[in-house]
Amino acid sequence: MAAENTGAGPMLVVSAHAGDFVWRAGGAIALSASRGERVKVVCLSYGERGESAKAWREGKKLEEIKQIRRAEAEAAAAELGAEIEFFDAGDYPLVESPELVDRLVRVYREVEPAVVLTHTLADPYNADHPAAARMALQARILAQAIGYDAPGDPLGAPPVFFFEPHQPEQCDFRPDVLLDITEVFDRKRKAMECLPAQVHMWDYYTDLARRRGVQLKRNAGPNLGLPHTTMAEAFVRLYPQTTTVLA
Amino acid sequence: MAAENTGAGPMLVVSAHAGDFVWRAGGAIALSASRGERVKVVCLSYGERGESAKAWREGKKLEEIKQIRRAEAEAAAAELGAEIEFFDAGDYPLVESPELVDRLVRVYREVEPAVVLTHTLADPYNADHPAAARMALQARILAQAIGYDAPGDPLGAPPVFFFEPHQPEQCDFRPDVLLDITEVFDRKRKAMECLPAQVHMWDYYTDLARRRGVQLKRNAGPNLGLPHTTMAEAFVRLYPQTTTVLA
Amino acid sequence: MAAENTGAGPMLVVSAHAGDFVWRAGGAIALSASRGERVKVVCLSYGERGESAKAWREGKKLEEIKQIRRAEAEAAAAELGAEIEFFDAGDYPLVESPELVDRLVRVYREVEPAVVLTHTLADPYNADHPAAARMALQARILAQAIGYDAPGDPLGAPPVFFFEPHQPEQCDFRPDVLLDITEVFDRKRKAMECLPAQVHMWDYYTDLARRRGVQLKRNAGPNLGLPHTTMAEAFVRLYPQTTTVLA
Amino acid sequence: MAAENTGAGPMLVVSAHAGDFVWRAGGAIALSASRGERVKVVCLSYGERGESAKAWREGKKLEEIKQIRRAEAEAAAAELGAEIEFFDAGDYPLVESPELVDRLVRVYREVEPAVVLTHTLADPYNADHPAAARMALQARILAQAIGYDAPGDPLGAPPVFFFEPHQPEQCDFRPDVLLDITEVFDRKRKAMECLPAQVHMWDYYTDLARRRGVQLKRNAGPNLGLPHTTMAEAFVRLYPQTTTVLA
Amino acid sequence: MAAENTGAGPMLVVSAHAGDFVWRAGGAIALSASRGERVKVVCLSYGERGESAKAWREGKKLEEIKQIRRAEAEAAAAELGAEIEFFDAGDYPLVESPELVDRLVRVYREVEPAVVLTHTLADPYNADHPAAARMALQARILAQAIGYDAPGDPLGAPPVFFFEPHQPEQCDFRPDVLLDITEVFDRKRKAMECLPAQVHMWDYYTDLARRRGVQLKRNAGPNLGLPHTTMAEAFVRLYPQTTTVLA
Amino acid sequence: MAAENTGAGPMLVVSAHAGDFVWRAGGAIALSASRGERVKVVCLSYGERGESAKAWREGKKLEEIKQIRRAEAEAAAAELGAEIEFFDAGDYPLVESPELVDRLVRVYREVEPAVVLTHTLADPYNADHPAAARMALQARILAQAIGYDAPGDPLGAPPVFFFEPHQPEQCDFRPDVLLDITEVFDRKRKAMECLPAQVHMWDYYTDLARRRGVQLKRNAGPNLGLPHTTMAEAFVRLYPQTTTVLA
Repeated sequence: MAAENTGAGPMLVVSAHAGDFVWRAGGAIALSASRGERVKVVCLSYGERGESAKAWREGKKLEEIKQIRRAEAEAAAAELGAEIEFFDAGDYPLVESPELVDRLVRVYREVEPAVVLTHTLADPYNADHPAAARMALQARILAQAIGYDAPGDPLGAPPVFFFEPHQPEQCDFRPDVLLDITEVFDRKRKAMECLPAQVHMWDYYTDLARRRGVQLKRNAGPNLGLPHTTMAEAFVRLYPQTTTVLA
Repeated sequence: MAAENTGAGPMLVVSAHAGDFVWRAGGAIALSASRGERVKVVCLSYGERGESAKAWREGKKLEEIKQIRRAEAEAAAAELGAEIEFFDAGDYPLVESPELVDRLVRVYREVEPAVVLTHTLADPYNADHPAAARMALQARILAQAIGYDAPGDPLGAPPVFFFEPHQPEQCDFRPDVLLDITEVFDRKRKAMECLPAQVHMWDYYTDLARRRGVQLKRNAGPNLGLPHTTMAEAFVRLYPQTTTVLA
Repeated sequence: MAAENTGAGPMLVVSAHAGDFVWRAGGAIALSASRGERVKVVCLSYGERGESAKAWREGKKLEEIKQIRRAEAEAAAAELGAEIEFFDAGDYPLVESPELVDRLVRVYREVEPAVVLTHTLADPYNADHPAAARMALQARILAQAIGYDAPGDPLGAPPVFFFEPHQPEQCDFRPDVLLDITEVFDRKRKAMECLPAQVHMWDYYTDLARRRGVQLKRNAGPNLGLPHTTMAEAFVRLYPQTTTVLA
Repeated sequence: MAAENTGAGPMLVVSAHAGDFVWRAGGAIALSASRGERVKVVCLSYGERGESAKAWREGKKLEEIKQIRRAEAEAAAAELGAEIEFFDAGDYPLVESPELVDRLVRVYREVEPAVVLTHTLADPYNADHPAAARMALQARILAQAIGYDAPGDPLGAPPVFFFEPHQPEQCDFRPDVLLDITEVFDRKRKAMECLPAQVHMWDYYTDLARRRGVQLKRNAGPNLGLPHTTMAEAFVRLYPQTTTVLA
Repeated sequence: MAAENTGAGPMLVVSAHAGDFVWRAGGAIALSASRGERVKVVCLSYGERGESAKAWREGKKLEEIKQIRRAEAEAAAAELGAEIEFFDAGDYPLVESPELVDRLVRVYREVEPAVVLTHTLADPYNADHPAAARMALQARILAQAIGYDAPGDPLGAPPVFFFEPHQPEQCDFRPDVLLDITEVFDRKRKAMECLPAQVHMWDYYTDLARRRGVQLKRNAGPNLGLPHTTMAEAFVRLYPQTTTVLA
Repeated sequence: MAAENTGAGPMLVVSAHAGDFVWRAGGAIALSASRGERVKVVCLSYGERGESAKAWREGKKLEEIKQIRRAEAEAAAAELGAEIEFFDAGDYPLVESPELVDRLVRVYREVEPAVVLTHTLADPYNADHPAAARMALQARILAQAIGYDAPGDPLGAPPVFFFEPHQPEQCDFRPDVLLDITEVFDRKRKAMECLPAQVHMWDYYTDLARRRGVQLKRNAGPNLGLPHTTMAEAFVRLYPQTTTVLA
């Protein structure tokens, strides 16, 4: 009987908009999927109003934009090896509600995640991100209560990781964990390329992965043999790590 | 070639006074030793002035007190399975110096630790603790430099963990890691009992291990089967964790 | 005419669930009551869904659980010497609303507390706790406004103390005040024993009181004669202390 | 046997320069003295280089300036009812040393303070202030150790208060305590007027006392009858308050 | 094409109550207006319940109080050279709503501000202030989205400054910017005098401007010739400054 | 007489090692020099032990390494348009001393900087960086004191900017200022290419400038016409900005 979380088990990713999970956690998702774990992504909205500027400038309509974003996100999720579900709750603003939280509780109870990923609680550039995070955290707590009226068993206490926002320092994002995604980076790149409206982001997040990779090597203890091209993603833990080994 | 620190390899513990490593990290030490890893404890002083009140009240002299503390610490280290070395640098105050830092660099180069444990950088109750931590950290950085003139190879970048101070909240100690020490707690208890001058601490730190154990179970994800008697120690990381699994 | 708050006057305790006031502030309540002050506890919910796991596992129904929790909380309050009122607002989640805040304003205006106790504003393990605290604070501000339409006179500015959460460091709980509850600890223990569903908490919070007592003695200035068995509760102030003596 | 610090007993004030104790803690000193408590001020330097611009511009010499500052500080201390001792350790920079700390330990052991006042640990405008604070705190810890070789008994654990720096927000000064100095403000004003080189400070610190007084009234609970002219000084606690009453 | 914000362009001020913009930002407003820039003030409420104690004590009725406050605020805005609009959304509490945020979005789109001023996000003395700030920030983000359905073009990213709350340290207000308002201080004083219900505030905020002026001079680099009577207002930035010159 | 710092005047850069000023502040330096301002760089050491791994691995000797680093830094400074002076104080560790601080005071008094750049005060990867920053700040304060015995006039209060460390989040580096260096980026690149031992850094810091440029555009208010290739450097202010315009 070990106190250590092994990370073995399903991963749940709660994302405010359709593209967030790709830029910010595509490596973590692909890594988990590559080990045979189930990964479920919930997109609370399509990012149809706030993150589809190009489509609006081209004169597209709301429903059309939602369809485009949905198709892109589905393709990216497939590339990464993840299931995806859309709540279509609207963005800009993403409005918090008990109903949305309850839907998330049901997802938690069904997926029984061993790991949860979501946005940071602070983001002065985008209020939908913290709103998504607050709902993801509230639902996780409710799903743990045996008295909460939803199908399934009470949830354990899966660790929660915040993925990296666009301007990390302004969002109080101080990385606790650097995840080596070198072996799945090609998949992340391909998943990013499923999102053609934001071409400039492909290189931006490739550069970021390289930068986080350099930092990983700098913190990686005596692993001096790491390749020059190590790629990484950064995360912040919400709860203390539980373990049987200090490392 | 993995980016993950496995914790396999030697552990170095830098302790300001003779007893600190027992109360604050005895479980971590015993756990590491029980896996066959080398553990080296450096006591910068014996705690002869500041942490030997009972002996002073009994009228003992300085040199005698140092001998007593040394013998106790040696017994406790043996119980835990660790080597121990005393720098006899004096306490209350423990005065930082380039010479002490250089001695520590040589220990780092010789031990090549995979993990380092020391005091927190803040402690408004005891200025020797942060002084020890500052020297431990400075020596770790110097030991990494190929140009630093000391025997041995440049050090890798072993992770550093701060162990728990007596009044954690006042020392900005917010646990990042809860370590399950259940299986070695008996050894920690026996090591504590090697320090007869502080009998009241035996129960105090047993209670603390139980309390941290309760918290560990609360954070331990879906590991619902952990025993009621889980015992734990709490630590704070200085550097980001590097890993290949989010857990 | 003194600027010093003497603590003479009623105490108001705003608690999210039925048991919180006992574990976290039972000593403070008993101490105030033992001095002849009125103490009023408001339980916003019974903790029927989120903090009654044992009853749910035994197959009890919602209304039955609420009755059990109510009876236990009434017994505990009586033991401590406090009045108790239940808002029955539901838990997991406890949903904030203008109506609940307004009910609290009316309690403030009626009780005219000299001291207010409630939960911390951060608690990543339980969202009901911060929700209760936010409502308690909002109501306190509204009750101070002469223009707020509720019976009674405008409230003064009673000091607010946050009581200790289950995992203090993760809730940014850094004690500002250690309250000596030695003389009433027996009452707190008896009040805890009125809550039989959480037997393991009796010892947990007895240990905690002992631990906070040790810390109190360490900070208690020249009061070297404090008994070995000093018991304490920890609190955080929201507003600056006003006083005529530095001590 | 009470856990409460009553503030009854000597006060020790450790000040970097000759004028600091007047501007920043004159009210606290006068209040304590007016109750018949002994107050001892230690000025580590005269502020001869860094806080005597007017004298330098007038062409005065170093020794002359030191004499002027000393005489002024003695007059101000007398007005407030305090003893004063000068260490003449030099300023700009005030250099920390084991010898200075040892001298302070001896003062602690002799005075046996029930309350200690000093500068904040952060001050980006004046490095002498934090240097003084660090030495004051280190000496307090050393004086508590029975094994520290200095005359007198081991010190208890007197509470420490940081007094208000010139630019409080930049020094992380967030008031924990607002002290009502209304009844002794005249003495503080007279003491300030003993320092003629800094005339503009007389009104500046009178304004500040009024401003802190307004804040005190805003936090003073139901004490609605406080006079319009309440004057106050602000302080930050280093250690938790220990008490038997929440107020 | 320069990256530097010049401050040339309209200013938008979002104020919870009718008087806030005068006490806290009157200088900034007058300065901007004196340069010929448009300044628009939005008062979300009149402060009729929470900040009109004198009128209530005189027995005035709600509607009457609102009219008085409105007339005073209009006079003050005129004195400062600003337009003013009242949302009449109610105070104590000011309740956040999507409708209010949408009205603000429309104001942003119409005014196209180059600079935005509002309250701090923390204020334990007044929950309306953070509520106003949250809505001002949310509306600013929504107004930037091309997909948000409101007249006008998508907004740029105007910098946001929080103005000074009544108890700055308790609101985590650490000034980033000290604005020299010397040349328009007379106008600010006259605008304050348009608010006769709070006479004591005239001097309070005059003193504060002098105090912030002293601090400005202390931080003003080599501008040694600043007049003794420099007056200033303090602000906190939400986003990083963008510039082509470090100064 | 304006309170605004215009940035017109000399710039002083205090750098721990020979390369730091290039990677971290090369753009700011080139920009200032391109406007005709004097820029003076002080390198406290050559980085001969800690930042010359390649040379050590090639078997070079200490003196030789120092000469190489010096020549490279001189070439880079020339490229940027700056003067450079070497204190040759040794690195790994860079030991703080009154003598070094005094030498810096003399530089301050001679250069009379309008702007000062140095390292952050926290850097858990490199203790020389904070040591350099502490000395730079201490010297700046001493140089302001008329009573400090060094040639020249007392210094004004030039603003201080911390430049970006290698792992910004771990060094508590939260950018306050994003400086547009687009027009001088070619010079920065050429200066970087003067440091051939760290070829991998050329692209690393080019990527970083692009990343900070993207962030600058995101914060640059209504300056929508900024070029896609905006390059930037990030800085943190130590003191509040003083200004006559909010922008």
